[in-house]
Amino acid sequence: MTLPKIGILTISDRASRGEYEDVSGPAIETVLREFITTECDYERRVIPDEILDIVAGIRAFADEGAALICTTGGTGPTQRDVTPEAMEEVCTKFYPGFGEEMRRASLADGVPTAILSRQMAGSLQKSLVINLPGKPGAVRVCLDAVFGAIPYCIELLGGPYIDGKGAFRPKKK
Amino acid sequence: MTLPKIGILTISDRASRGEYEDVSGPAIETVLREFITTECDYERRVIPDEILDIVAGIRAFADEGAALICTTGGTGPTQRDVTPEAMEEVCTKFYPGFGEEMRRASLADGVPTAILSRQMAGSLQKSLVINLPGKPGAVRVCLDAVFGAIPYCIELLGGPYIDGKGAFRPKKK
Amino acid sequence: MTLPKIGILTISDRASRGEYEDVSGPAIETVLREFITTECDYERRVIPDEILDIVAGIRAFADEGAALICTTGGTGPTQRDVTPEAMEEVCTKFYPGFGEEMRRASLADGVPTAILSRQMAGSLQKSLVINLPGKPGAVRVCLDAVFGAIPYCIELLGGPYIDGKGAFRPKKK
Repeated sequence: MTLPKIGILTISDRASRGEYEDVSGPAIETVLREFITTECDYERRVIPDEILDIVAGIRAFADEGAALICTTGGTGPTQRDVTPEAMEEVCTKFYPGFGEEMRRASLADGVPTAILSRQMAGSLQKSLVINLPGKPGAVRVCLDAVFGAIPYCIELLGGPYIDGKGAFRPKKK
Repeated sequence: MTLPKIGILTISDRASRGEYEDVSGPAIETVLREFITTECDYERRVIPDEILDIVAGIRAFADEGAALICTTGGTGPTQRDVTPEAMEEVCTKFYPGFGEEMRRASLADGVPTAILSRQMAGSLQKSLVINLPGKPGAVRVCLDAVFGAIPYCIELLGGPYIDGKGAFRPKKK
Repeated sequence: MTLPKIGILTISDRASRGEYEDVSGPAIETVLREFITTECDYERRVIPDEILDIVAGIRAFADEGAALICTTGGTGPTQRDVTPEAMEEVCTKFYPGFGEEMRRASLADGVPTAILSRQMAGSLQKSLVINLPGKPGAVRVCLDAVFGAIPYCIELLGGPYIDGKGAFRPKKK
């Protein structure tokens, strides 16, 4: 049996050139391994802040059947922040509730600049794609705010059954 | 005198084929009749989850001068959920505050998967269009969260005067 | 040394024809002068509710190097409200967190119709553009909700250093 695949994409010019050790990707893996109780196959990749590379990186994980793709980096206001632009290009559906809740959770965590984050969630094929922040502490705050909805969303997208912390599945009406 | 018209559109493949009794449309009518104190002409229609049918369904109610059009169904992540895609096509203005508040109200009501909902509100001609969930309980939670703004919005769109529960009209500055 | 420039754009058919005294623009300037402790060069202009005029008005302030451009008016549901349409055309990035927080703050301030506001924030060149409401009281409520993130955003966009009430700058990770 193939394990559910989780792709983690660190989007960073400096990390992709090796000038900077990627700490965000490993932080996401740590939190996900803690939240997800189902055994999964985690894979991390590092790419530069280029729209085409981000689109290709997300699409590659989706083509490999990843149930969940988490990105980190590139959601701020600077000229090199282009992750949302890549999301708009590669995803076919968008779930504004993820961005709303992650920004609100970061704000409640005492970060007024959370409103500058353009992070979003979308899907393509059977993959749910979520943009996470770069700081390890902020990653946990954001995943904590939205994780309960992730397993059911993966299921609705036709992906594998995944269980974990506070996973919620509504009863059929 | 013509009564204000309220259109209720149930978007469901199964209900439109008669395989399933539509309970969502009647639930919306029940809540609206309770909230709106002005006498209105309510009309319910059932259509399949097809973009063209949804666009035509919304446009037909707008052409008939409906002040308010409520849809139910098709706002989730599955491949057959295409109500937001139809909204993007048929509406000329969008009011993100409705989606934000309805998701937040459902979350507060104990439904973590509320963030998966792509429900939105928009307008075309003189009609306000609001996407509601399918479950009768969730319909009430959502309408309760946004109803106060509906009568004034209809007025601003050039529609009829409607009154009801908590209807708010700001004083002129 | 050139002072940081702040542009205030009142978007109103009546005020631009002189039929109505612009109170919104001066109200924004008053609140900003209170919040911003850095000396700035404030400039106010009044234009009609026309997409092309709004686009030109925002672009002119950006070309002049304004760090912050605040607009007032034109974010409601009526046919003459076209500020968001101009924003979509002139801005290159959008920050949904501003609209979310400003609507939420107005709602919490007891204005249920706040969800009808299509106000947003975006950026072009090195300028942050924020749509504010028209009523002086509402201007203060909205700026109070988002001001803490404005100075850091201006910095990330390559603009001048500005300080003020609750200005937040995250520590580097």
